[in-house]
Amino acid sequence: MNLADKIRTIPDFPKEGIQFKDITTLLKDPESYQEAINQIAQRYQEVEIDYVVGIEARGFLVGSPLALELNKGFIPVRKQGKLPGDIIKTEYDLEYGSNTLELHKDAIEDGDKILVVDDLLATGGTVKATLDLIEELGGEVVEVAFLMELANLDGRERLKDYEVFSLIID
Amino acid sequence: MNLADKIRTIPDFPKEGIQFKDITTLLKDPESYQEAINQIAQRYQEVEIDYVVGIEARGFLVGSPLALELNKGFIPVRKQGKLPGDIIKTEYDLEYGSNTLELHKDAIEDGDKILVVDDLLATGGTVKATLDLIEELGGEVVEVAFLMELANLDGRERLKDYEVFSLIID
Repeated sequence: MNLADKIRTIPDFPKEGIQFKDITTLLKDPESYQEAINQIAQRYQEVEIDYVVGIEARGFLVGSPLALELNKGFIPVRKQGKLPGDIIKTEYDLEYGSNTLELHKDAIEDGDKILVVDDLLATGGTVKATLDLIEELGGEVVEVAFLMELANLDGRERLKDYEVFSLIID
Repeated sequence: MNLADKIRTIPDFPKEGIQFKDITTLLKDPESYQEAINQIAQRYQEVEIDYVVGIEARGFLVGSPLALELNKGFIPVRKQGKLPGDIIKTEYDLEYGSNTLELHKDAIEDGDKILVVDDLLATGGTVKATLDLIEELGGEVVEVAFLMELANLDGRERLKDYEVFSLIID
């Protein structure tokens, strides 16, 4: 099964010149979706992990089944104003404007071993902001796992201080 | 295991007087999270379903593991501007202002049997908008499943033309 073939490319989304990788075609095929989760999970079967952190919203689609497959708790990192408890937040730059991510203060304790999951590694800005939040609470980032990586956008360079795994590299 | 005890109540979020049901405490406990998914899945083991539709963003956290548990494809309903392919959309009223939901046109074909999943049934506005989108594409809504229902908000009344199941009723 070639999982990369299950991800379709939509040209000019969200704007002209961008080749958008659309994972909805993979999610709709249950054998492919399960196989993707299984292959990522296999890598971490023997690794000491306390929690899986997934980034809203597509990161939930990879992170939550992965957490259950690994029998670990799932912790969401969310956009501004969505988490109801006491939070820490970080603002980071996008190409145009900025974005804010939040994490519950009591979600992670000092020394917790964290696997961070998102669907796509592009420039790495969103995931780097997530790593900052986790470390602010004393969490140790064991590795960062992606369903897919766009290698030409140099996201790995921004994450060079971390272990990075991508199931599919484009 | 009492799953209801794993959901905490945060007072006055997102505004004064609202008792917000926070599922992050359940998600963080892998036995409870898996048990919740298993209990919902058990209900649909013998039911004819083609796809599970989950509503962004917390609906992804219930719908995607449920789809995998049932070995069915997962289809996301998303907020405006997130789905890259050809879409249909619906706008619906919130207490203040309005919201727009979108669904890929090619996600559902005439006669597809759909299980719709979200985390919480409150007034039912978001899920009703989702059902409208599914039916516009010819999908047949088999049932609507929630992790939790706030019975005093009368969401069931708005969904009275559908089968509704809630794992936890508050």
